[in-house]
Amino acid sequence: MRILIVGAAGMLGRKLAERLARDGVLGRERVSHLSLVDVVESERPAAPGFDVTTVAADLTERPAVDELIAERPDIVFHLAAVVSGEAEADFEKGYRVNVDGTRLLFEAIRLAGTAYQPRVIFSSSIAVFGPPFPDVIGDDQCLTPSTSYGTQKAVAELLLSDYTRRGFFDGVAIRLPTICVRPGAPNRAASGFFSSIIREPLNGEEAVLPVSDDVRHWFASPRAGIDFLIHAGTLDSGALGKRRCLTMPGVSATVGAEIEALRRAAGDEAVGLIRREPDETIMRMVAGWPGGFDARRARALGFRAEADFDQIVRVYVEDELGDASS
Amino acid sequence: MRILIVGAAGMLGRKLAERLARDGVLGRERVSHLSLVDVVESERPAAPGFDVTTVAADLTERPAVDELIAERPDIVFHLAAVVSGEAEADFEKGYRVNVDGTRLLFEAIRLAGTAYQPRVIFSSSIAVFGPPFPDVIGDDQCLTPSTSYGTQKAVAELLLSDYTRRGFFDGVAIRLPTICVRPGAPNRAASGFFSSIIREPLNGEEAVLPVSDDVRHWFASPRAGIDFLIHAGTLDSGALGKRRCLTMPGVSATVGAEIEALRRAAGDEAVGLIRREPDETIMRMVAGWPGGFDARRARALGFRAEADFDQIVRVYVEDELGDASS
Repeated sequence: MRILIVGAAGMLGRKLAERLARDGVLGRERVSHLSLVDVVESERPAAPGFDVTTVAADLTERPAVDELIAERPDIVFHLAAVVSGEAEADFEKGYRVNVDGTRLLFEAIRLAGTAYQPRVIFSSSIAVFGPPFPDVIGDDQCLTPSTSYGTQKAVAELLLSDYTRRGFFDGVAIRLPTICVRPGAPNRAASGFFSSIIREPLNGEEAVLPVSDDVRHWFASPRAGIDFLIHAGTLDSGALGKRRCLTMPGVSATVGAEIEALRRAAGDEAVGLIRREPDETIMRMVAGWPGGFDARRARALGFRAEADFDQIVRVYVEDELGDASS
Repeated sequence: MRILIVGAAGMLGRKLAERLARDGVLGRERVSHLSLVDVVESERPAAPGFDVTTVAADLTERPAVDELIAERPDIVFHLAAVVSGEAEADFEKGYRVNVDGTRLLFEAIRLAGTAYQPRVIFSSSIAVFGPPFPDVIGDDQCLTPSTSYGTQKAVAELLLSDYTRRGFFDGVAIRLPTICVRPGAPNRAASGFFSSIIREPLNGEEAVLPVSDDVRHWFASPRAGIDFLIHAGTLDSGALGKRRCLTMPGVSATVGAEIEALRRAAGDEAVGLIRREPDETIMRMVAGWPGGFDARRARALGFRAEADFDQIVRVYVEDELGDASS
């Protein structure tokens, strides 16, 4: 089985490559080749038992995209995106990458002919939804994004559904919760503080909290995120019917609950490293974000996330601090 | 006030131009100039009290679109589209016109600068919704189109909402019911038979009915369609808030109810001209179409349609056969 990861240098892409290298299989199928593509050179996973190619390519350039698809990957993970903060700051770049780049990829697959019908897994986002929200958002919530990023993800979802319906590929879009705790340096997502208020204190550093404690949001760990992707790559897509876009399960938690989970994991001293610095712009953006989902369809299809925020903190400690503390 | 109609050679475009020529105003504002644009030359309305320019231009060619916007119309009616049957038959053409053409138009307005912020009225469609449907579809129904045409309209709606939110223009998308009874020759919309089973018998001609009598659908007359467009061009858009896409009111009727309305208007002989010729392809498409909407938001905002199908037949007789029978 040949696998292509577009957006392989990002946090999830890197972790997905590592996971595939470790497992050697996707579901029951042995991985024979893995292509890692991003605008920058992707990191090669350690000790893979199969061929790995890394390609630095721009998703917005048609020849580059055609070349990736000419390799006929059986599974395409499309994780590449300009993130929320940047898509809001740079309107043109957001549309160019998130809409046009996605469409170039889908078109390359369509134009490769009817005999070629890979599974395409697209990392969408809960940003496709906008206020007003019910307390718990059902699977039939209408698409009313309140950011350019959310709009671009919603457009890509619509394209994926239509390309799938037309038989050009076998698409599955998974709407990821805010992935938390993100390891490493912050990216330009406006949601970065949800991770940094846990990550920085656990690393003995100060973190800035730009919103109030009662802000509620929807989370899953990077480990759960990878499980979602793997499951989306292996499930029987017939069970999805025509509804190819799925809201992933997650943990609904307030910033206050995050902080209490940090306190249980690392004590008052860690919590003391959180510095409150309200930011009007971020508060306004976050006010338009959802607090919790039902995610019934995804759960019924076997997608699993953490049960509470303590578990999310534990995953970070195990997966990211494990080596450092040993 | 300068007005631009894109898609002016289509049925609604032509009727809108005639209405503006007759009224001389849009709301309280005097019309000073009307540009009629389509891929073919548009018909000039009779006796307008203002300048009319007709332009044959391709919405998918950027210089042509830029030129239209360089005239700084205060109101842009974007009615141009590849219709449902054709968008399903010609995948590339549907996306090129309905998605890329729409985006070129929106981009031309955005790039004209922040001082220019026209009202943009986009004719969307109930095809943005797909099954399963509740009996009466509410304003919060999720976007799950089951055709390429519906997908393209949904994408355009998302773009319109984002461009409006970003302050590039003042957009209103109106989801038109199936416009019935369409005058003149059938177009390539798969929904054409809903009109032809009324129109052809009223003109003493045979009509083919490809679906069963219990098929229920959502209708408004061309006259109501023009009223929607005029109202969308004049209403206080502040009342729309961030939800810029509105399902228009209409009449929910079965094919059987259509036929009974025809019988009341023109007798058994007219009904006898309907020839039943089931068509599997059309039946499959129509099975995915909605039967009726709540349209509460639009009604509250002052949009009005007919009360029943008899009225829809009457509008056809008055507006299209009035001259012929006099």
